Amino acid sequence: MSNSVPERLAVLRSLMKEKKIDVYLVPTDDFHASEYVGEHFKCRKYITGFTGSAGTAVVTQDMAGLWTDGRYFIQAARELEGSTVTLFKMGEPDVPTVHEFLLQTLKQGGCLGFDGRTVTAREADTLAEKLQKNGAVINKEEDLIGEIWSDRPQLSCEPVMELDVKWAGRSRKDKCGGIRSGMKEKGADAFILTSLDDIAWLLNIRGGDVPCNPVVLSYLVMTDREILLFANEKAFPESVRASLAADGVSLQPYDAVYDYVTKFEKENTVLLDRAKVNSRLVGCIPEGVTILDEENPTLLPKAVKNPTEVENEKAAHIKDGVAVTKFIYWLKKNVGKIPMTELSATEYLNKLRAQQENAMGNSFAPIISYGAHAAMNHYSATPETDIPIEPHGLLLADTGGQYLEGTTDVTRTIVLGPVTDEQKKYFTAVLRGMLNLGAAKFRYGCSGQNLDYLARGPLWELGADFNHGTGHGVGYFLNVHEAPNAVRWRPEPKCGVFEEGMITSDEPGYYVEGEYGIRHENLIVCKKAEKNGFGQFMCFEYLTMVPFDLNGVVPEQMTERERGLLNEYHREVYEKISPYLEPDEREWLKEATRGI
Amino acid sequence: MSNSVPERLAVLRSLMKEKKIDVYLVPTDDFHASEYVGEHFKCRKYITGFTGSAGTAVVTQDMAGLWTDGRYFIQAARELEGSTVTLFKMGEPDVPTVHEFLLQTLKQGGCLGFDGRTVTAREADTLAEKLQKNGAVINKEEDLIGEIWSDRPQLSCEPVMELDVKWAGRSRKDKCGGIRSGMKEKGADAFILTSLDDIAWLLNIRGGDVPCNPVVLSYLVMTDREILLFANEKAFPESVRASLAADGVSLQPYDAVYDYVTKFEKENTVLLDRAKVNSRLVGCIPEGVTILDEENPTLLPKAVKNPTEVENEKAAHIKDGVAVTKFIYWLKKNVGKIPMTELSATEYLNKLRAQQENAMGNSFAPIISYGAHAAMNHYSATPETDIPIEPHGLLLADTGGQYLEGTTDVTRTIVLGPVTDEQKKYFTAVLRGMLNLGAAKFRYGCSGQNLDYLARGPLWELGADFNHGTGHGVGYFLNVHEAPNAVRWRPEPKCGVFEEGMITSDEPGYYVEGEYGIRHENLIVCKKAEKNGFGQFMCFEYLTMVPFDLNGVVPEQMTERERGLLNEYHREVYEKISPYLEPDEREWLKEATRGI
Repeated sequence: MSNSVPERLAVLRSLMKEKKIDVYLVPTDDFHASEYVGEHFKCRKYITGFTGSAGTAVVTQDMAGLWTDGRYFIQAARELEGSTVTLFKMGEPDVPTVHEFLLQTLKQGGCLGFDGRTVTAREADTLAEKLQKNGAVINKEEDLIGEIWSDRPQLSCEPVMELDVKWAGRSRKDKCGGIRSGMKEKGADAFILTSLDDIAWLLNIRGGDVPCNPVVLSYLVMTDREILLFANEKAFPESVRASLAADGVSLQPYDAVYDYVTKFEKENTVLLDRAKVNSRLVGCIPEGVTILDEENPTLLPKAVKNPTEVENEKAAHIKDGVAVTKFIYWLKKNVGKIPMTELSATEYLNKLRAQQENAMGNSFAPIISYGAHAAMNHYSATPETDIPIEPHGLLLADTGGQYLEGTTDVTRTIVLGPVTDEQKKYFTAVLRGMLNLGAAKFRYGCSGQNLDYLARGPLWELGADFNHGTGHGVGYFLNVHEAPNAVRWRPEPKCGVFEEGMITSDEPGYYVEGEYGIRHENLIVCKKAEKNGFGQFMCFEYLTMVPFDLNGVVPEQMTERERGLLNEYHREVYEKISPYLEPDEREWLKEATRGI
Repeated sequence: MSNSVPERLAVLRSLMKEKKIDVYLVPTDDFHASEYVGEHFKCRKYITGFTGSAGTAVVTQDMAGLWTDGRYFIQAARELEGSTVTLFKMGEPDVPTVHEFLLQTLKQGGCLGFDGRTVTAREADTLAEKLQKNGAVINKEEDLIGEIWSDRPQLSCEPVMELDVKWAGRSRKDKCGGIRSGMKEKGADAFILTSLDDIAWLLNIRGGDVPCNPVVLSYLVMTDREILLFANEKAFPESVRASLAADGVSLQPYDAVYDYVTKFEKENTVLLDRAKVNSRLVGCIPEGVTILDEENPTLLPKAVKNPTEVENEKAAHIKDGVAVTKFIYWLKKNVGKIPMTELSATEYLNKLRAQQENAMGNSFAPIISYGAHAAMNHYSATPETDIPIEPHGLLLADTGGQYLEGTTDVTRTIVLGPVTDEQKKYFTAVLRGMLNLGAAKFRYGCSGQNLDYLARGPLWELGADFNHGTGHGVGYFLNVHEAPNAVRWRPEPKCGVFEEGMITSDEPGYYVEGEYGIRHENLIVCKKAEKNGFGQFMCFEYLTMVPFDLNGVVPEQMTERERGLLNEYHREVYEKISPYLEPDEREWLKEATRGI
């Protein structure tokens, strides 16, 4: 970094004065409301130094603040040291929300500035409405970080590939046809889609413009006649261009979408999700055009994996399970004997995954965190933080791979040597929660809000908890976090109703700051169980196939049913994974999956 | 009944023609959106013959329909036989809702009629908005049932009593002061309260205008200067009048409220809950008056029982437990030996309750249902349906009492002789659900939506379910159903967050139409558990003290923890109830509460 955060803040503040902006807001978002963003978009990191995936910076002449959630409290506190940026721990008592802070700070005549491309139309509307009551205004035209960031990285332009229908299960034509029928029913002439994973899903294309998220930086507009894909055409090989053209998809320059939407006419009805499309783009649509503000019609068909996708995912998870199982074996065999650190272990696992057929890289930055590092939910080792792994305590490995057959996300907590009774108690409680949620059977219509207790109950009974959601939807060779299915206990945001084919993570945890962290995570796919006079019942099936470390388990603290669930799972792991192992690995797995 | 339902419908239809009303809606409500209503208000029963506590009648020239929920499907089908009224089973697939039916039926120029006093302002608004799109209108001025119902009972005028602060825990003055502070904060000049249990709670008065619900037929308007109680003054003994007057409450004629609210002025701000106040009354408020449409500020302080109320409730539940335990003993000892029927058993239990100190009658119509009758969730025996109780199968007893010390509601399913393995299986599963919910420990912020799985899980795992909510809030010597706390899995209606002091029922069940029904119900009071770095934990304590019938339990189908929960509960039941029993009863209870 070329200068320090305080220096950058000083330059930003003088620019704010010049532009008569009292408070400048820097969200994490790119122009597509993505959860993870490419280097070009990391303005919030530039202005605060905080590298986590979620957070919002607010800068005034007097102060600078960073809001982030429980996953990042520890990491942010460390990264903000010496930055002059104050950490606001979201959700903690007496901590104002970003909105509350803005309302306290911006009074009559005040001006809030932000780059309208990095704030969704929904969020900008809400802010404008609240600030109006104070007599304050919004200026969303200024990309001030862009102005002061001299060595800002270029927009990404990674090569685009086509995802064959044998992987995707449905053709681009079929998917677009489905969306068009929906548009017709709603009376929409056009549909604006800007969320990158939805575009990739709809067009059966994959790219690399966001690390670990195989998406293509683009905007899409669909009408009944044409499909316009606004993207950097240099990223598209000739064959992909031809294939898209054959299905009526024409490429346009990335930025041209802002001009394109100015040409809608008053009689047009445009379908878009204000919670997804950025406020500058919506602002370019002429007044008088009818906007149907609805959830993207791609959201549900993307989340509900088709039978081909589900079968492929099972294959992906066996390959991924082989890699992770080999990794655990290697770790346990070699710890204390050969030098290893968080980073070198990560490299070793990356290599094992890369050896699998159709492997396409990681699905998120691998979390291999040893000892106290594991208490930071989203810790990812860097050369500065890297520590040796030693033959005692717990190692938390939360990693995932991308394959043509799908996306994986798995966490195992590995016992490297002596652990305390307390660690075993919580290791067991977290595992019970994971197993109980995975074994849920429920009426159709339930969401993750109904089921969260299953995962948290064993911890809550001990007066313990974990400061993150219990589960998130997972894409198909796409983003590892995907709406609408999720598992959370709080009523907002709402979790979507579980549909057959949805893939969700099941990942309770337990963390002691400065000491250790435990998390157990399997992906589960929702299936139909029996339908009878009471209704349609639903259940889950495990996709992830990796043993849990029995050295952390206290069988006496589990019910008979829970032990049965674990034994059944381990039998399946052995059956599916052992054929792909070396003899010594297989022998170890036999013991590691023994009945308890 | 003086004439048949088809005859009444014919008279209604000719009146509808005369008044140019195409569809006439007859809800269950009185003028106060009460769940249960006095005889004067039973228009829906008059016009359909259906006697259940929930349902809506819709009459056109061609058809008459009755909408009711799962609790009443069996009973309604029986009662509607020969009435020409069609049963619409709410929530079943392909059954239109009342609104959907009205929208299908009322097209351009159509007119929907109802008595605006029996439909809340919220509901009337929603209907008007939907019908407007069809070009249909609403006439809410016509009480057509009132016009045709020649022998309609008078408005109830039962004597009013004052509830001493030693029972209520807080004085009327203190409660009214709290509400007034809230009004001031919101800038409200007046507060209109028409829900009967809220008025009774606020003024520490009790009456008898709705069977089993000790409320006083009245409307209340509070300003910063005065409190007007619109009610029949004949119901108020001199002492109560004087006491009310001393606290600034003046009595006005019941109907005078409609005229009173016409006198609000444009600068006034009136606080009311449109979901509770009837549409005619809201319609009488002059245009231009600001209406703050908010939940009644009485709702939460009424639901959150104060420490005095909680202690009193514990005493009430011991007395009630003694009565019900004696009843179960009597039943088991005498069944097959002396003649007994559902009605005679009900009478016997009523007598046992009436013997308890400060007993004030039943809290709802007792449900003593034998065999197949128990499959009807809200069956209440009548001379026509009454059947003998025999020494085999299951008897379901869902009953409750009113005491100066609180309201009880308890269900026990009693094994009278041989039962099948299937019956035992479900008896055990329902009991497991009851115990698991009662033993929940959870983070503050959870509602019944988060916890419902605990009660339903054991049934869902068997592919079974029950067609009613798992729990409802309970009043203090007041209505047995009280918002906002409840236990339900569906996202709507929302359950309120559990607060310390809330009393809720925990009552899963299992029903086989034509065969048998099982329900186990305890009341639980919410308490604080530990507060630590993770947050505030909450739990429940059982109020109900009555043994569960171990003859229905299969211990091997319970976990060790569940058996422990049951044994612990039974130990407490014996300890608290046995001192009040005769020696033979006590000996029996010892055995009935033995550890398993």
